[in-house]
Amino acid sequence: MSTKVTKSEALDYHKVPNPGKVAIATTTRLESQRDLSLAYSPGVAYPCEEIKDNPEAAYTYTSKRNLVAVISNGTAVLGLGDIGALASKPVMEGKAVLFKKFAAVDSFDIEVDEKDIDKFCETVKAISPTFGGINLEDIKSPECFEIERRLVDELNIPVMHDDQHGTAIITTAGLINASSMMNKKPEDMKVVVVGAGASAISCSNMYKELGVKNLIMCDSKGVIHKGRTDLNKYKKDFMIDDALTMNEAFTDADMVLGLSRPGTFTKEHISLMSERPIVFTLANPTPELFPEEVREVRPNAIIGTGRSDFPNQVNNVLGFPFIFRGALDVQTRKINMTMKMAAAYAIANLAKEPLYPELKVMFGDLSYGPEYIIPTPFDKRLMVEVSAAVANAAVETGVARVKEFDLEAYREKLSHMV
Amino acid sequence: MSTKVTKSEALDYHKVPNPGKVAIATTTRLESQRDLSLAYSPGVAYPCEEIKDNPEAAYTYTSKRNLVAVISNGTAVLGLGDIGALASKPVMEGKAVLFKKFAAVDSFDIEVDEKDIDKFCETVKAISPTFGGINLEDIKSPECFEIERRLVDELNIPVMHDDQHGTAIITTAGLINASSMMNKKPEDMKVVVVGAGASAISCSNMYKELGVKNLIMCDSKGVIHKGRTDLNKYKKDFMIDDALTMNEAFTDADMVLGLSRPGTFTKEHISLMSERPIVFTLANPTPELFPEEVREVRPNAIIGTGRSDFPNQVNNVLGFPFIFRGALDVQTRKINMTMKMAAAYAIANLAKEPLYPELKVMFGDLSYGPEYIIPTPFDKRLMVEVSAAVANAAVETGVARVKEFDLEAYREKLSHMV
Repeated sequence: MSTKVTKSEALDYHKVPNPGKVAIATTTRLESQRDLSLAYSPGVAYPCEEIKDNPEAAYTYTSKRNLVAVISNGTAVLGLGDIGALASKPVMEGKAVLFKKFAAVDSFDIEVDEKDIDKFCETVKAISPTFGGINLEDIKSPECFEIERRLVDELNIPVMHDDQHGTAIITTAGLINASSMMNKKPEDMKVVVVGAGASAISCSNMYKELGVKNLIMCDSKGVIHKGRTDLNKYKKDFMIDDALTMNEAFTDADMVLGLSRPGTFTKEHISLMSERPIVFTLANPTPELFPEEVREVRPNAIIGTGRSDFPNQVNNVLGFPFIFRGALDVQTRKINMTMKMAAAYAIANLAKEPLYPELKVMFGDLSYGPEYIIPTPFDKRLMVEVSAAVANAAVETGVARVKEFDLEAYREKLSHMV
Repeated sequence: MSTKVTKSEALDYHKVPNPGKVAIATTTRLESQRDLSLAYSPGVAYPCEEIKDNPEAAYTYTSKRNLVAVISNGTAVLGLGDIGALASKPVMEGKAVLFKKFAAVDSFDIEVDEKDIDKFCETVKAISPTFGGINLEDIKSPECFEIERRLVDELNIPVMHDDQHGTAIITTAGLINASSMMNKKPEDMKVVVVGAGASAISCSNMYKELGVKNLIMCDSKGVIHKGRTDLNKYKKDFMIDDALTMNEAFTDADMVLGLSRPGTFTKEHISLMSERPIVFTLANPTPELFPEEVREVRPNAIIGTGRSDFPNQVNNVLGFPFIFRGALDVQTRKINMTMKMAAAYAIANLAKEPLYPELKVMFGDLSYGPEYIIPTPFDKRLMVEVSAAVANAAVETGVARVKEFDLEAYREKLSHMV
């Protein structure tokens, strides 16, 4: 999302009419002494006792049912880096706003002033009874891997670090459609990943899950291979045998995923790729290469960026609101790979559907093809398609608490929430 | 607040139409790609950078400005005891609802699954950048004292354990008015406090601040005196020299504050008191003694309970919403004794004002006197009177961050928020 905005416009947006972007709303009647007696003492003792006897009752009597925490320690915020917990608050509030706006998920932002992995995890675990799910956000690599792994293991509510998996899910959707357009199977593709941070590693894992076998990851020192002695354990998972150069990595590659910085690869690299490559240049706001630069050397490339002013915007908002919507609605304990892959396929399939009139007004005559492999964030069908796919996958893989699940009835319910 | 409600009514209230009592509301426009670019990337980077450079800017650009956390570990919930963090959630949501409804303060509930003092404090400190203030709630004694002391010392946002200070502020308001009606000065009064928990200790401290010198505290073992070897350090502050019996403690006493259980003192104890005593029987929902029992032996007693179905309800909602309203509005670092005493006087003074028409409809011809020493929670003037008194006291004692404060302008602003 990168429509040009000025500093003063952005500051005003956050200041006027009131500071910030979120507030609390009460959802029950509270007009009389009697209402007070229901909402608070003495009536409130009844739901407390129900939950004490049966913790699952919290999903029936409290906001936990629809509540996701957006939690960050501010160590890797947007392109700003480690700006600290407090300064990350506008971003986390923004994420909470997106949850509400796109998927009617209630969301609190929690800024945690703690960089130590143990202490951060202890804090999140301690406050976890409050929430039905936890969206980790903007936590630096490699700490984010250990933090997510531990919280996923130790909590029984869904935990997802969106910076890792959000982009993975959306680009996997793009890869599914683009490879189909090129009549290539993931198994046969050569994929270069430029960048080796949290998101790059999750993307690579998901592409492998999709079937990709030939995947070369590059960090700031070049190709990640067995001869390197400077690799953390997460990068080591992607070592290849040979000490290839970047040029060799790009030669005949079918896809490149850029999650790095402007200029880390060039037109010359693209000119080494296969005739009709997939090129995701996701550095934001300035991509590694602009689409017109890619087209100079590969006119038929299928290109995606992180920006709204070019086709095929890779935008996490296509995923996380609906992933948590589905996860909350069947009360999952985890968000597993099957659920993430179901989300990717649902997103990919939606791009094949014609735009409805309201979207045509916004986006003209966009239709499934190289310029439209990923739906837009304003496609209201995401709510039904992605949430239902995720919920269904949770039920089928046995991580949902909800025992009775009727997919068609759930889709119907979602359609009324849009 | 103790209007009779049934279990099924209370459970329905918490379940229908949606689980829980609070939700998130977005406060800014979010209809277009451009709005997204302001609320989230790239526009959101500007307020982040402002806050990174100047932490105080968080009050200008984020919801911190109006946001109080209601935090509990569920160890002393209502009359239910230690029911755990999760089961306390309906109460904490209820408190958040009261903040919003009575004083337009946004409030998240946070349930912390941690009983260890060190770890609890570490957790709250870690998440504190999120909030403009912290209302601790339903944490058992004596841990609550150390927890509050540490958080007050170590954080630079206002922290208050409402179970301690809420009742203290409201009963102090009652004491101010009742003693004035009896033409007694606090300095000359004999006060018996039955109960030695968090609230009793805070009440006793505040009465001493008001001038009371002769104060006798009793716990379940009787009068707290120097001969006892079973006292924690908080009770030791209230030791008297002599090993009095309960009967001796009550003899000629001018006031009794009951914060204990039904039956801990009796009509016989009341019959030992001075001719026209102040009797606060605050055990809830069943008071130590019912007003009619007190009147059998002291017909002219001034009586308060915790219940809405008797005169002079001691209800914390008269205090905390407005104390935090005032504290947030001048961005205080602390809530000090001067601020609490200012709140007590503001509440006391409001009882002297005639009811306005809307209140007369609800409460009939109530007017300042033994049956009306404390205003009702529905008195909308509390917002202006208490919040303004607290904010003004914060400014005068130098704990407010706001440098320019115009009391009349602030009162005017509050009057429009009612």
